[in-house]
Amino acid sequence: MDSLWTGRWRGLTLKIERRRVRDGGGPTLRVLAPEATGAAREWLRFDAFERQPRWHFDPEGEDEIRPLDERVDPIAEAFDRLTQEASSLLERAGAPKALVRTAASPDPSEAVVLRDAQRAMRHRPARLDELDPVRLRSRRSEKWHTYPADVLPAWVAEMDFPPAAAILDELRRFVEGGDVGYPLGLRETGLPDAFCERMDERFGWAPDVRRVEVLSEVVQGMYVALEAFTEPGDGVIVQTPIYPPFLGSVRDMKRKLIENRMRLENGRLEFDLGALEAAITPKSRLVFFCNPHNPSGRVHTRTELERVGALAVAHDLIVVSDEIHADLIYDGREHIPFATLSPEIAARTVTLTSASKAFNIPGLRTAIAHFGDDALQRRFNTALHRHIRGGIGLFGIYATMAAWRWAQPWLDEVVPYLAGNRDFVAERLAEQLPEVTFLRPEATYLSWIDCRGLELEGPPAAHFMRNGQVALSEGGLFGPGWEGFVRLNLGTSRPILAEVVDRMAKAVGR
Amino acid sequence: MDSLWTGRWRGLTLKIERRRVRDGGGPTLRVLAPEATGAAREWLRFDAFERQPRWHFDPEGEDEIRPLDERVDPIAEAFDRLTQEASSLLERAGAPKALVRTAASPDPSEAVVLRDAQRAMRHRPARLDELDPVRLRSRRSEKWHTYPADVLPAWVAEMDFPPAAAILDELRRFVEGGDVGYPLGLRETGLPDAFCERMDERFGWAPDVRRVEVLSEVVQGMYVALEAFTEPGDGVIVQTPIYPPFLGSVRDMKRKLIENRMRLENGRLEFDLGALEAAITPKSRLVFFCNPHNPSGRVHTRTELERVGALAVAHDLIVVSDEIHADLIYDGREHIPFATLSPEIAARTVTLTSASKAFNIPGLRTAIAHFGDDALQRRFNTALHRHIRGGIGLFGIYATMAAWRWAQPWLDEVVPYLAGNRDFVAERLAEQLPEVTFLRPEATYLSWIDCRGLELEGPPAAHFMRNGQVALSEGGLFGPGWEGFVRLNLGTSRPILAEVVDRMAKAVGR
Repeated sequence: MDSLWTGRWRGLTLKIERRRVRDGGGPTLRVLAPEATGAAREWLRFDAFERQPRWHFDPEGEDEIRPLDERVDPIAEAFDRLTQEASSLLERAGAPKALVRTAASPDPSEAVVLRDAQRAMRHRPARLDELDPVRLRSRRSEKWHTYPADVLPAWVAEMDFPPAAAILDELRRFVEGGDVGYPLGLRETGLPDAFCERMDERFGWAPDVRRVEVLSEVVQGMYVALEAFTEPGDGVIVQTPIYPPFLGSVRDMKRKLIENRMRLENGRLEFDLGALEAAITPKSRLVFFCNPHNPSGRVHTRTELERVGALAVAHDLIVVSDEIHADLIYDGREHIPFATLSPEIAARTVTLTSASKAFNIPGLRTAIAHFGDDALQRRFNTALHRHIRGGIGLFGIYATMAAWRWAQPWLDEVVPYLAGNRDFVAERLAEQLPEVTFLRPEATYLSWIDCRGLELEGPPAAHFMRNGQVALSEGGLFGPGWEGFVRLNLGTSRPILAEVVDRMAKAVGR
Repeated sequence: MDSLWTGRWRGLTLKIERRRVRDGGGPTLRVLAPEATGAAREWLRFDAFERQPRWHFDPEGEDEIRPLDERVDPIAEAFDRLTQEASSLLERAGAPKALVRTAASPDPSEAVVLRDAQRAMRHRPARLDELDPVRLRSRRSEKWHTYPADVLPAWVAEMDFPPAAAILDELRRFVEGGDVGYPLGLRETGLPDAFCERMDERFGWAPDVRRVEVLSEVVQGMYVALEAFTEPGDGVIVQTPIYPPFLGSVRDMKRKLIENRMRLENGRLEFDLGALEAAITPKSRLVFFCNPHNPSGRVHTRTELERVGALAVAHDLIVVSDEIHADLIYDGREHIPFATLSPEIAARTVTLTSASKAFNIPGLRTAIAHFGDDALQRRFNTALHRHIRGGIGLFGIYATMAAWRWAQPWLDEVVPYLAGNRDFVAERLAEQLPEVTFLRPEATYLSWIDCRGLELEGPPAAHFMRNGQVALSEGGLFGPGWEGFVRLNLGTSRPILAEVVDRMAKAVGR
C-alpha cells in the first residue's frame, strides 16, 4: 500500500492510496472522519481498481460493496458519488450529525482539493530513466523515422518519455469504448474552460473563456495570424535564433521578415532591444514572440517583456506570443504570460499555446489561441472561416484536458529530471568537448550549443550526423548568423543522453 | 480453432486460424507445403497471440520456438519474416528444393494474397446486434451528448458500432507505446498510397498519388475549394436535399447558392437535370456533388453522372465530388468515382473522401482530397497555405490506413447488416406509421423519410423529439422545400432501431 495524498474536504479526511489486492488492485479513495474529532473511522471507500472496480459503504460497519462501472471511468464515478452522495450515505451509516451536515455543504475552495485528489488517484510514477530503445524505434513518429536506424535522434522537439498515465488511461477509455465519433462543439467539450483554469492555476492569469479558439497547432495559429493581421509586404519582427516555422511562415506568406538578432553575452542570449526599436518601420505590423524562448531556453524577465510590450504599444504592433514551453521552467524561475503585463498590452496580444510540448502529445494536434481583445478575435475568425482551419480530433481535445486537469504530478517528476539532464549534459560536454559552449537553458528541454570553437567545415549538425550518427538540429535553420550552432534535445533518458554526447565527441575524434 | 482463410503464396499454402491455447491464444499463420505436392507439412507457424507472441521454426520437426516482439506489432513482424526469410528458413529445415526456390521468388500478384491474409489475421467478428446502451451513453461524442439522457439519438451520421478490431488494435499499439509524437510528413506516412490502393481495389480507379492532399475532414475541403476556385458572388450548384454543410459553406463564404431541387418520383429522388441546366449562368463556377447522395441514399448511375459531367464540361464548371459514402452500397450496386468518367471530366474534378464514414472514425479527423489536374491542386494549395489547414493527428492518419488496408472483413459484415436494418425499418414503418414514405436507400446508413402524410404542425423532427424522445435530423436543414421530411440514421443495432421506430410511432399516438 502506498499512501499518495491526504487532504481535508467538507470536514472529512480524504486519503488516496495505491493498493495491491489478490486480483490486481489500483487506486483507492478513503473517506474518513478526521482523527482530531475523536471519531476517526472510515465511512466510505472507493476502489477504482482495474478489475472489478467497486465501492464500500461503511467499510468498518455494514461494509456493503457495490460496483463502479468499469465500462465508463471509475475514478470519475467515485468523485461524482463523493460530491453528490457523501452526506446522505454518511447519514445512513449513522455518522455523527455534524459530519453529515458539513459533508452536505460545498466549501467554496474545494475545487482545488478535489482536483489534487483526482490527480493523485490518476497518477502512476513516470519512468523516465528506463526508456526501451526497441519501443522508441518502433514508434511511427518523425523523430524516430527520419534517419536510418543507426542514427540516434536528438532533434525535433518532443520527448522520448511516454505521456502521463492520466493521459494514456483517458486515451485507453476512448479506444476500449469505441468512442471515436464526432466530438461536441469545441466550447461544449470543456477545453476552453480547462485552458482558463490551467492558466489561472499556473500563472495567476484569468483569460476570458469567450476569447479562446481551439487550433490544431501553434504553427497553424502563426499562419492564420499573418493572414488575419497583416498584408503581403508588411513587416513582422522575429528574435533570432528562433524555431524555424516563425521564419518559414513569414516567408511563405510573403511578409517582410524583420530579423532582430539576439546577442550572446557571457554564455547567455539577450534581446537587443535597441536594434529592435531601430528596425521598426511604419510598415511593421506584428511581433512574433516566443517565451520561454526556443531554442535559447531563455525565460524572459518582466523588465524585458515590458520593454517589448512598450514598443508594441508605441508602434501599434500586434504581439503573437508563443508560450508553448511555459510549463517547462527550471530553477524556480517564473513564466509571465505576455497578456498579463498590462490591459493595454493584453489588448494587442494573441497567445498561442498547447499541452503538446510539456505533456508530450504533439501527434494529437491540439492547441489554443487566446485573444486579448474581441476585435483581434473577430479579425482572426473572419479573415478565414473556422472550417478552413479544419476539425480537431477527439483524442487531442480530451488528452489535452486530461493533461491540464490531471497530469501535473507527472510533470512534477519530469521537470526536475529535465533540469538534471541539462546539468548532466553541461558537465559531460565540458569534459568531452570543451571547445563548445552549452547555453544552459532556463526553460524548455532544448539547448543551444555554440560549436564555433570546434572550427568544423560546414554545418556542425551535418558533421555530427556524418561522423557520429547523431541527429541534432542545424543552427542555420534558426536564422542567419547561427550556422555555427546546433540545437540538442534533452528530453530523453540519461543513458540515451550520455550516448548522444559520446557520439558528438566521437564525431570530432575524441 | 476457427479456420479463417486459406490461400496460395509462392508455391506454399498459407492458413489463418484463430486458436485458443491455455494462456490465451489469438491469430495464427501457418505456412505449409500444399497437399497436392505430396509433401504436406507445416514448415513455419506464427502465433501472433496477445500474450507471448511467438513463431515456430519447423513445428513438425525441430520445433524451435522464438518470440515475436510484443512491444511492436507481432502480425506485421510475422509477415515481414514470411516475405523476407521464408526461403532460407525452409532450406534450413530441409524442405524440398522446389519449395525453397518458389518461396524465394516474389509473385507479381502476391500483394493481394498477403493483404487478404493480413486482413484475416487482424479481423475479429464485428458485434453489431449487441450494443451496450451504458457504453453508448458514456461516449463523449456529439451524438450521445447533445440531448438529454431520455432521448434516443438517431441523427448525426455516425454508427453506434465500435470500429473494426484491426483499427482499435492499431490505436492500442499507439497508446501502449506512448507513440504520440510528431507524425512524419503526410506523404511519408503512406496515407496517400493507401488511398490510391483502396480506390483501385474497390472501384478500379488508379488516382495519381502526387495529386492527393490530406485534410482533416471533407467539410474543410468544401470550404477551401470555395476559397480556391470561386469568388464571393460566384454561383455554386447544389442538389437538394443535401448534407447541410454544403449549404452552410456556400452561405458562410458568401457565394451564390444555385439550388437544384431533386424530384420525388415513385418513392425515389431523381436529379432534375433540365432544371440544373436552366439554372447555370455565366457566374456559375462550381458544382458541389454528393455521390452516394446524403440524405437520399441514391447511388447515381453512370448515365446520370455522365450528364452532370457533360454539363460541367459545357459550362466550364469545377466539380467537387463528395464520395465519403462510396463504401456503403447495397444490393450489388456500383459506385462510380466521378473522376473516372472521362479524362476531360477528371481534369475538372476534385474528389473528397474519408474512411471516417464507412469505418466509423469521424472523431479522428482525417480526409482526402484528390485533384484530377495539377492546376486544380496548385490553386487549392496556393489560395491558402497548407499550414492554414492545420496539422493532421497521428491517430487519424494510421487509423485510416488500418481501415483501408485491413478492415474490409469488418465492413463485409457491417454492410449486409445495414441493408438488413434498412429492410427492417421499411417494414416496421409500413406497419406502425403507414402515413410516412420511407425512401429506401441504395447506399449510406442514412434514410430520408417523407412525413407529410402525418400532417403534423411544424417540423416533424421537433414533433418526434417532443412526443417520442427520439432525435432525428430535421428535413428543413437539408434545403428549402424539404421541411416535411426527416433523416433517420440506420447505423445502430436492430434492438435500438426497433426502439427508434416505436418512439416515432408513440410520438404520433400509436
